[in-house]
Amino acid sequence: MSKMVVSLNENSYPIYIEHHLLSHLSEYLDSNRRYVIIADDGIPRKWVDLVSSQIPDGEVLRFAQGEASKSFDTFAALMTQLAELKLTRKDCLIALGGGVTGDLCGFLAACYMRGIDYIQIPTTVLSQVDSSVGGKTAIDVGTMKNLCGAFWQPEAVFIDPEVLSTLDPRQISAGLAEALKMGIVFDESLLEEFEKEKPDFDRIIERSIDLKRQIVQEDEKEGGRRKLLNFGHTIGHAIEASFPEHDYLHGECVGMGMLYFIEDEELKKRVAGILKSLNLPEIPDYDKEAVKEYMKHDKKSLVGGIDAIYVSRIGHPEIRMTDFDTLCGFIDNPPIVK
Amino acid sequence: MSKMVVSLNENSYPIYIEHHLLSHLSEYLDSNRRYVIIADDGIPRKWVDLVSSQIPDGEVLRFAQGEASKSFDTFAALMTQLAELKLTRKDCLIALGGGVTGDLCGFLAACYMRGIDYIQIPTTVLSQVDSSVGGKTAIDVGTMKNLCGAFWQPEAVFIDPEVLSTLDPRQISAGLAEALKMGIVFDESLLEEFEKEKPDFDRIIERSIDLKRQIVQEDEKEGGRRKLLNFGHTIGHAIEASFPEHDYLHGECVGMGMLYFIEDEELKKRVAGILKSLNLPEIPDYDKEAVKEYMKHDKKSLVGGIDAIYVSRIGHPEIRMTDFDTLCGFIDNPPIVK
Ligand SMILES: NC(=O)c1ccc[n+]([C@@H]2O[C@H](COP(=O)([O-])OP(=O)(O)OC[C@H]3O[C@@H](n4cnc5c(N)ncnc54)[C@H](O)[C@@H]3O)[C@@H](O)[C@H]2O)c1
Ligand SMILES: NC(=O)c1ccc[n+]([C@@H]2O[C@H](COP(=O)([O-])OP(=O)(O)OC[C@H]3O[C@@H](n4cnc5c(N)ncnc54)[C@H](O)[C@@H]3O)[C@@H](O)[C@H]2O)c1
Ligand SMILES: [Zn+2]
Ligand SMILES: [Zn+2]
Repeated sequence: MSKMVVSLNENSYPIYIEHHLLSHLSEYLDSNRRYVIIADDGIPRKWVDLVSSQIPDGEVLRFAQGEASKSFDTFAALMTQLAELKLTRKDCLIALGGGVTGDLCGFLAACYMRGIDYIQIPTTVLSQVDSSVGGKTAIDVGTMKNLCGAFWQPEAVFIDPEVLSTLDPRQISAGLAEALKMGIVFDESLLEEFEKEKPDFDRIIERSIDLKRQIVQEDEKEGGRRKLLNFGHTIGHAIEASFPEHDYLHGECVGMGMLYFIEDEELKKRVAGILKSLNLPEIPDYDKEAVKEYMKHDKKSLVGGIDAIYVSRIGHPEIRMTDFDTLCGFIDNPPIVK
Repeated sequence: MSKMVVSLNENSYPIYIEHHLLSHLSEYLDSNRRYVIIADDGIPRKWVDLVSSQIPDGEVLRFAQGEASKSFDTFAALMTQLAELKLTRKDCLIALGGGVTGDLCGFLAACYMRGIDYIQIPTTVLSQVDSSVGGKTAIDVGTMKNLCGAFWQPEAVFIDPEVLSTLDPRQISAGLAEALKMGIVFDESLLEEFEKEKPDFDRIIERSIDLKRQIVQEDEKEGGRRKLLNFGHTIGHAIEASFPEHDYLHGECVGMGMLYFIEDEELKKRVAGILKSLNLPEIPDYDKEAVKEYMKHDKKSLVGGIDAIYVSRIGHPEIRMTDFDTLCGFIDNPPIVK
């Protein structure tokens, strides 16, 4: 069992990590409090029942799985259901699921009656290594990802690696790409863990979320250093969006997207090797114009360029304003790993 | 010209009050910054043009006037328009209008890219004496008023009483009811201003917003004392909602709603006299069952009762948990002013 604390003054909260933690979750909850569990319909019943069985009148609201649910429609429908349940300002939501559930439930908590508590119980690798900590909540608006949201910290985060036993292997690998990102940007020993014959995945989760925790503490509102976590996302996002059939998972695209911004050939080779070992896809033959078009409309685009993150050697990230032409050059010439 | 400051640590902001302030607003704005004005289509062109003429590329987004615009639909449409304008995190919104515009624009600012700045330029009495200060932003969900929102403080508030010259007299009176509320709850001298032969309305605005400012400083998130501002709203809201044709304005209902909770006959008489002098309507013959029904579904209703605000004598408000039966008694027997 490990416990960390995200120190953010009055918004501080604990992160608990333990195998089978969900089996005795009730110890951490207030038996006199009302909780409503929010979970998409892809979260196995097993986990939903396990959590709801630990709560006196464990109500559960479900919604359709997938990124498309991070929408005004689903948000409004859930908000109405919370009101119908007569939830008050003192009650608490529980986000039980991956990043989609976490982002949506977190934003519901941020807005319901101008803000109520919520708890994160991440059930995907991506959410266990990254999204469950930090309080970034959001929904999408049209094609604009995470345009509408809030910084709203959870009250606690409960990570039980057991829940990953039911997760699709492709989802597992995609989530690990975000953990690898943390290693490249901040911590060589984390990267080395991936290179072991038998990587210790518990260690990877713990180390990644600890790095995330530290960055959030330093820069809660992403005014500076927290931007470094966008490493791999600039072109990654654009590739993701340019495949309208959702052919690639977010983490898969982040994996590809990192290679464009690693400036050391040796490191690029190591990273490519790890991506391969994780069965993550290689950069596909994408529609260059479509990727550029998306990039142009990306919400982070500013007059003059985009803040892109480069890594010259492990643990040495750098934010550099990069103009659109330079990015187009990258897109036209995807990285080749020798 | 008067200037006050709402002190909320890093969320502190100034309130400027001055006749013709809008004619030289540019002095207070950053000429290198991008501003987008949000105003409903009932705000006279005159004021919109005056403000937009002071901003380099003064873009304006308008929406249909009325409470019905505090909806997900209008919110989503405006959010999309902001994205189409490629507004960034560093830009700033301007809420130019009454409480509807302020609440909607403030919530847009709270959520766009997880939070950008906004400025309040209140143009109704209600917003000049009350809603422009305090950072309560929200939209309605179905019949549930202000269910979805955020505490998001503006960057500055600019009050120019000149804009009230175009406001409907009925709207003026309704707004003054909220100012009267402040007097009853906190400040006898404000109440006395209303009783003068020629009340000084500038003084009323200034004093009311100053009282609001102090309460917000003491209790930004409405955990305690700020609840006192709900004086008059418990039954007032329910009466308002029970007239589906919107026969009564919010402030008018607050005026009526206060009478139920004044426990001193002398004070009740004084307040009734002031309401009359302001041409505010007397308590109408309402549908008692409808009012009770609404009350039951009110978002503030808790198991066991509602926190209602009582005033035993001027400046002595009290929050008392009041059960539903007691409230029904009030509704069945509207106050009679002897
Ligand atoms: N808030 C942040 O800081 C942050 C950071 C990164 C990503 N994100 C967001 O996270 C989202 C992606 O999250 P994700 O990758 O977790 O996707 P996801 O939440 O959509 O989960 C992936 C799929 O796995 C299913 N699932 C979840 N847990 C399972 C389990 N234990 N067993 C079997 N199936 C399970 C889900 O039903 C879903 O179909 C994106 O919307 C992204 O924007 C947020
Ligand atoms: N945030 C808060 O703290 C707070 C407090 C009290 C009330 N409110 C909210 O405020 C809203 C009511 O605000 P309101 O009473 O200002 O109503 P409003 O914003 O709807 O304005 C009333 C009408 O006057 C018009 N108008 C505005 N300024 C004008 C001007 N100068 N000349 C001519 N016409 C003008 C508008 O177009 C509108 O039709 C409600 O939604 C209520 O929930 C919020
Ligand atoms: Zn990511
Ligand atoms: Zn009011």
